Amino acid sequence: MELTLDGDVVRAGYEARERFYDSRGYGKVRNGDIDLAPVEAAHLLYRGDIESIDGMDFRAFLGSAAVSEVDFAVYKDLRDRGFYLTPAREGWVDDAAGTDFVVYPRGKGPWDNEVAYRIRVVGERDTVDAADLGACVLAVVDEESEVTYLDTDRRDVAGTSDAVVPATEGELLAERVVCWEPPAELYEQAFYGQRLDDDGAIQLSLVEAAYLAREGLLSVDGGAEAVVERGREVEGDRFDRRLAVYAALRASGVAPKTGFKFGADFRTYAEVESAENLGHSELLVRVLPAGHQFEPRDLALDVRLAHGVRKTMVFALTADGGDGSGHSGDSDGDDIEWVAVERLTP
Amino acid sequence: MELTLDGDVVRAGYEARERFYDSRGYGKVRNGDIDLAPVEAAHLLYRGDIESIDGMDFRAFLGSAAVSEVDFAVYKDLRDRGFYLTPAREGWVDDAAGTDFVVYPRGKGPWDNEVAYRIRVVGERDTVDAADLGACVLAVVDEESEVTYLDTDRRDVAGTSDAVVPATEGELLAERVVCWEPPAELYEQAFYGQRLDDDGAIQLSLVEAAYLAREGLLSVDGGAEAVVERGREVEGDRFDRRLAVYAALRASGVAPKTGFKFGADFRTYAEVESAENLGHSELLVRVLPAGHQFEPRDLALDVRLAHGVRKTMVFALTADGGDGSGHSGDSDGDDIEWVAVERLTP
Repeated sequence: MELTLDGDVVRAGYEARERFYDSRGYGKVRNGDIDLAPVEAAHLLYRGDIESIDGMDFRAFLGSAAVSEVDFAVYKDLRDRGFYLTPAREGWVDDAAGTDFVVYPRGKGPWDNEVAYRIRVVGERDTVDAADLGACVLAVVDEESEVTYLDTDRRDVAGTSDAVVPATEGELLAERVVCWEPPAELYEQAFYGQRLDDDGAIQLSLVEAAYLAREGLLSVDGGAEAVVERGREVEGDRFDRRLAVYAALRASGVAPKTGFKFGADFRTYAEVESAENLGHSELLVRVLPAGHQFEPRDLALDVRLAHGVRKTMVFALTADGGDGSGHSGDSDGDDIEWVAVERLTP
Repeated sequence: MELTLDGDVVRAGYEARERFYDSRGYGKVRNGDIDLAPVEAAHLLYRGDIESIDGMDFRAFLGSAAVSEVDFAVYKDLRDRGFYLTPAREGWVDDAAGTDFVVYPRGKGPWDNEVAYRIRVVGERDTVDAADLGACVLAVVDEESEVTYLDTDRRDVAGTSDAVVPATEGELLAERVVCWEPPAELYEQAFYGQRLDDDGAIQLSLVEAAYLAREGLLSVDGGAEAVVERGREVEGDRFDRRLAVYAALRASGVAPKTGFKFGADFRTYAEVESAENLGHSELLVRVLPAGHQFEPRDLALDVRLAHGVRKTMVFALTADGGDGSGHSGDSDGDDIEWVAVERLTP
């Protein structure tokens, strides 16, 4: 069987179409023949279904510039798992942009009209733009050619944790605010702060205090701005981003608490009825500027940890280049994008 | 009872000594009276054992510059857990440097000669010098005043994974090396690389290949330097650090494999008999320059993840300012410091 590399396409005839496309979903039909992407041709060489392309065997072809090892690792892995898939080239699949492979449900192929996963291939040493996440599965190939699949999804955050709290007074200490005589609801129903002792004062984090002060629920010397100023002193710009995300989470009916023990900004409770009876927190939230670029390794770390504690990792992407004032307009969360990332076993 | 703040010491008399030092381990005896550190005095105020210091009640004293909220959170937490402890001031305890509190075993106190933990207090927003880790317990106070204890320990790494492998040939591709006809021992006994298919070629990571080439066990066009050059192209200086640590691990009888799925540089196997029968990997290794400064949150993330997968987190600190040549002298591992960090519940 004669196959020819023509630019970035391997051309093959009618017999190849029958054997490879019709029965096993390789390639793209063109005038009754088929075109194969180099990664598909490499897989056929690897399997011994074809012997050479322009005189190159598998070893020579994989070593050539025609095919990427990283793409091949993912293509092979998905084939090994029993999927048919098509390289996402313009004209080969719909919505090719931002996708490397379109994977069909098991038992389906390019002649059906169903998509199981849209895969983006990433090398361990590449960076990934946060803005590009959502509606795709990252297939990260590590230095030993193992593939880790991370499903990314834009989503909303919602809950029913919306207890009403009366206003109270607080005292700003170095990095927290103490409410010496708080209403019981503050901690017990709405789950703000931590008890300083068993039945009295509540200590609030700066982000909790800044939020409550802006909502008019906490009086503190210097007002909300004094708390925000302190936050910026100790955290820089990150404080404004975290406050915007905190406010958006509260506005969505979700109670955020520190995610420090999980290396995240917040863990969240969607259905707080009382601090005594909290249940499981569902999300780990990491706050990042929208222009953030991930190292795949950091993504793998976050997602693995979240999975291990039965939570979902969510990245809260805040609009860049705000004026830092963080005033009311920032709190509605309209300018925050939520991206959930979870491990996937295709 | 009269107590007076005198600089950074609270002075108290004989009665206070009897009540607080003799029976409960607060303070430092001085001429039959006692001196209390402000954090100790704050705790006595908090408990209601004393009412005021220079007219300040607990609230006023905690709000003053005399006592740090972060120190207080840790002091209180350890007292709540049933420990006696002493602020690590010069003249109060031995080896005060680098320590904030000396904690005695439960049931023991400052009059005994035993130490359970040497605690260093860190706020969530402080940075921690990698060089300062080892032989101390970090008590990290997060923004909600919860305390996370991280035990740090300088240690050696050792194992019995030292299978001998015959030399072989490899082909350098973009970011890996393929051995098309490797000796069986390469993967099966010594656990280098991954199988490209079930019974033939082995693909090596660049760090594995560079190590094997330097050891004279792998021939590749351009020699070891070609592989190292490629590594530097795709990873920068980090490649040299990782290679030095890889070599040191192998020299210690430990087989390193990628730690990517855990967000680390390597996971390690101390007793590889065969790739088919590997057992559990014991360590996760993150490679860092010796001058690294940790964010406590990143430490918490690494240590939590390692704990969740029943491994120990080890930071491999490589000497700074090497000439980057990475030649033989670098491979003996003498200039690498290993710091294990584990969660601790005192």
